[in-house]
Amino acid sequence: MQNAVQRAGVETDPDALLRDAEAEGGLRVVVAGEQAILREENGRLTALHSGNGAGFGPVLERVVLGRLDGRPVLAASYDPDAATAPGVQASDLRSIAIQGLVAPAELGMLAQAKSLLGWHARHRFCAHCGSPTASASAGLRRDCPACKTQHFPRTDPVSIMLVARGEFCLLGRQARFVPNSYSCLAGFISPGETIEDAVRREVLEEAGIRVGQVRYVASQPWPFPSSLMIGCICEATSQDITIDRDELEDARWFSRDEVALMLERRHPDGLITPPPMAIANHLMRAWLNGPARIEE
Amino acid sequence: MQNAVQRAGVETDPDALLRDAEAEGGLRVVVAGEQAILREENGRLTALHSGNGAGFGPVLERVVLGRLDGRPVLAASYDPDAATAPGVQASDLRSIAIQGLVAPAELGMLAQAKSLLGWHARHRFCAHCGSPTASASAGLRRDCPACKTQHFPRTDPVSIMLVARGEFCLLGRQARFVPNSYSCLAGFISPGETIEDAVRREVLEEAGIRVGQVRYVASQPWPFPSSLMIGCICEATSQDITIDRDELEDARWFSRDEVALMLERRHPDGLITPPPMAIANHLMRAWLNGPARIEE
Repeated sequence: MQNAVQRAGVETDPDALLRDAEAEGGLRVVVAGEQAILREENGRLTALHSGNGAGFGPVLERVVLGRLDGRPVLAASYDPDAATAPGVQASDLRSIAIQGLVAPAELGMLAQAKSLLGWHARHRFCAHCGSPTASASAGLRRDCPACKTQHFPRTDPVSIMLVARGEFCLLGRQARFVPNSYSCLAGFISPGETIEDAVRREVLEEAGIRVGQVRYVASQPWPFPSSLMIGCICEATSQDITIDRDELEDARWFSRDEVALMLERRHPDGLITPPPMAIANHLMRAWLNGPARIEE
Repeated sequence: MQNAVQRAGVETDPDALLRDAEAEGGLRVVVAGEQAILREENGRLTALHSGNGAGFGPVLERVVLGRLDGRPVLAASYDPDAATAPGVQASDLRSIAIQGLVAPAELGMLAQAKSLLGWHARHRFCAHCGSPTASASAGLRRDCPACKTQHFPRTDPVSIMLVARGEFCLLGRQARFVPNSYSCLAGFISPGETIEDAVRREVLEEAGIRVGQVRYVASQPWPFPSSLMIGCICEATSQDITIDRDELEDARWFSRDEVALMLERRHPDGLITPPPMAIANHLMRAWLNGPARIEE
């Protein structure tokens, strides 16, 4: 997901940036409950709203995101009722991304807004002492007035890997996937692990396959709720698959030709891959295109 | 830091692994307050203790780590008094690492233990509703009995980068560093950023230098308190340094010859680098040795 917001310098004086964003000329990304609020401008939808959010009801949380062409941008959350404000359209983030409702450069912004506002909603209390916490530093932090602990939004690193063995690669599907969709294996990186350790452990646990070399390809923030997907291509050193049925419904080796057909939605059995915006799709194309690294 | 513990399959039945680890034949890594408890075996110190921890007082928290040569391993925390048990020696993790008190393969285990036990100590309450939480799944999780939220240990991704410009690289020092020590720049990856975005933002914020290409080199878990260091080498596209004095005491360009002398502790001005176990040291050696990726 692209994100046109420039974050550089946000932490230098976030409160000043918040005041600027609230003033005329600022922009806001608006979230109401689980939905993003879009509006129409010049014949297409946008997630960016001018003004101070009048019409959406009382603001619940505000977080500064950065600057867009010099204009300050903040994320603001409201009650679900805000979706009924006049002249707006509400939609969930997945639908916005898959249907391409807004410009690609706005998707990252929406994801960042949803992820940070969700973190605030789920972290109203201090994990250290149990007291209520308060938003601080223009939403970049929550502070505990009782024990003085500062809490920062969390980002969970996840390894996602295309496992290659010669002209074949290993793809799997979870029961919750859309029907016929196969993707790369993935899992959270545990405390104490390197990225490469995590890749080897996940593939061994989920598919019983041993992995040798691991090569980093690209990373992607994924806001469900707040992951950093770290995409790798790795080499299998064994072949017989043992599926962990708690994790996967199926896993098998796919030829290069099959993966190409799946990416193009032309596989004879109707098998498909995740959509182009997913990093798994990038990894499959990187593998098909050879050893070159995907440049951003 | 190397870690000889095998984590594969730990999550399949962590409670069974915990019972095995408590029984005869299990091993435990023992932490008392801020210190690790070491014992002597065959003339050298080890962090691994056999038996059920009798002699250290009441156990505070237990977390399963994995298996070592088939034997189950857990981490256990005790009151600081445990450091006075007979026949043991207590030391903090940094000193153990820098002085090489235990075998290198035990350092990662100690780091994993300290990081997970520290997370338990700092997360006794539910961030969502404020109720006390309880350890679950043999320490891999904390559960809230009131609102049913499951809390998992956090790992914070950090980008750390050697910024290269031809025959020079940019190194800086924070006021808290040991005197004369210069290192790579580094910073937490924010929600919504890629690894590459974070590298470019950090270098611009801290040193005013613009960065083009970014190449991933290696990663390292760092347990102070729970980071995943993601090491990159990147190309500067500008030269004039503007130091952010809130972050850095100094930053400047160093020649290849100077960095080589600093690594060898032979720089004429007494300037030094972080020690070999630090990923910054790896990045400097990777840069000196040319474009080859550091293989684990």
